[in-house]
Amino acid sequence: MPRYALLVEYDGRPFSGWQRQSELPSVQGAIEAALAKLEPRDHTIAAAGRTDTGVHGTGQVAHCDMDKDWDPFRLSEALNHHLRPAPVAILRAARVADDWHARFSAYERRYIFRLLSRRAPLTVENGQFWRVGHALDADLMRAGAAHLIGLHDFTTFRSSICQAKSPVKTIDEISITEIPRHDGTEFRFFLRARSFLHNQVRSIVGTLERVGAGAWPPEKVAEVLAARDRAACGPVCPPQGLYLAGVEYPINPFI
Amino acid sequence: MPRYALLVEYDGRPFSGWQRQSELPSVQGAIEAALAKLEPRDHTIAAAGRTDTGVHGTGQVAHCDMDKDWDPFRLSEALNHHLRPAPVAILRAARVADDWHARFSAYERRYIFRLLSRRAPLTVENGQFWRVGHALDADLMRAGAAHLIGLHDFTTFRSSICQAKSPVKTIDEISITEIPRHDGTEFRFFLRARSFLHNQVRSIVGTLERVGAGAWPPEKVAEVLAARDRAACGPVCPPQGLYLAGVEYPINPFI
Repeated sequence: MPRYALLVEYDGRPFSGWQRQSELPSVQGAIEAALAKLEPRDHTIAAAGRTDTGVHGTGQVAHCDMDKDWDPFRLSEALNHHLRPAPVAILRAARVADDWHARFSAYERRYIFRLLSRRAPLTVENGQFWRVGHALDADLMRAGAAHLIGLHDFTTFRSSICQAKSPVKTIDEISITEIPRHDGTEFRFFLRARSFLHNQVRSIVGTLERVGAGAWPPEKVAEVLAARDRAACGPVCPPQGLYLAGVEYPINPFI
Repeated sequence: MPRYALLVEYDGRPFSGWQRQSELPSVQGAIEAALAKLEPRDHTIAAAGRTDTGVHGTGQVAHCDMDKDWDPFRLSEALNHHLRPAPVAILRAARVADDWHARFSAYERRYIFRLLSRRAPLTVENGQFWRVGHALDADLMRAGAAHLIGLHDFTTFRSSICQAKSPVKTIDEISITEIPRHDGTEFRFFLRARSFLHNQVRSIVGTLERVGAGAWPPEKVAEVLAARDRAACGPVCPPQGLYLAGVEYPINPFI
């Protein structure tokens, strides 16, 4: 069975996350249903990151196995046709080796979190940011984030239902870009790691927001990390600013 | 009665345009209903631009007259509270002179049109762009746009129901910025004029898209303009990429 890698974009709002669940809408379920229109049978796809309810994907990667030899461009076009009107799109498809795996072949995940400081509620961009009504200091957040770079026990920053075997992870990058807007300031977080724990990005951003607001000194991030205690974490921030923005493989299947 | 200028943002999708209509949802109607929660009576507000169904506002300006002296910040916060959950937000409010008028005091309107060239349907950003599935040449579109700058009879580029007394208008600027994205290319049109005719921006962008796609040579824009014939216009493009982005006044009330 020829295997295809799929570069997937989706709006997380109408879905109960990536993973298929019997009674709830999921991104995986939407794509598997579209695949069943092309080749009528059960399909099971695998993805690099199992995003939560409300979390968006702009660079999610999945793979599927097909009976037929599909031209990759035609496969993406046919899937997009059958995915409508669900807010899921296949940006690219590519033929990959039979042992290539969207999850296990990946060596890096990249997340973006978009935090917007402005007073007024969002309109056109509703659901695309976590909006806070107060000012934030990017340099304070950067000083707080510096404590999290490298290999650490991230027990403080993972959800109590996280299924990872170990809380020890290496974060390679947390950078924060300050983007002035006519209506406020966007703080765009870029996080890079081999893999993340459940709720790790939202726990980190929620904690750094407290630092940016002046409620926590940056050094407190080091303290709560060292505590290895979920209760020490800052508030977990809402999902709508979070985007799985990219997945890296030894060989990029889409080039 | 103290008069206030309001800087207004809205998502055009759920509204039948700016202007109040008895049975249909409108942005004007939503704001007037919120004003009636603050001061219970009929309210009538005026705006710089009466945008169509589906057209967004990021820098619309309106004015309202109040019985009470409102602190401008408190007025914007109270309106935003009562506007929920409608996707309309007051970004700023400012006290202005009693004879200041959001429409008649304005000397310039600024529109942005966001055209996205990408194959896959939109997901997170659905409703924020006009998406086309083919490539576009920005330089060809710029060459076509150059024919429209300055004082012209824009009969070709206005809707048959346009109520303006004269089809003669001056366009001061049409610039096109090409923004590469991982999933395609955005072509962002920026148009500036004292005022625009009904459907003028969408008629211009729809025509320039034909030029960018290679279907029309840039010189044809000069020909159809000279024809002064609505039937000569290119296809009017859809509203969802259009944003009323700003209005200029001799004195900016919001600074």
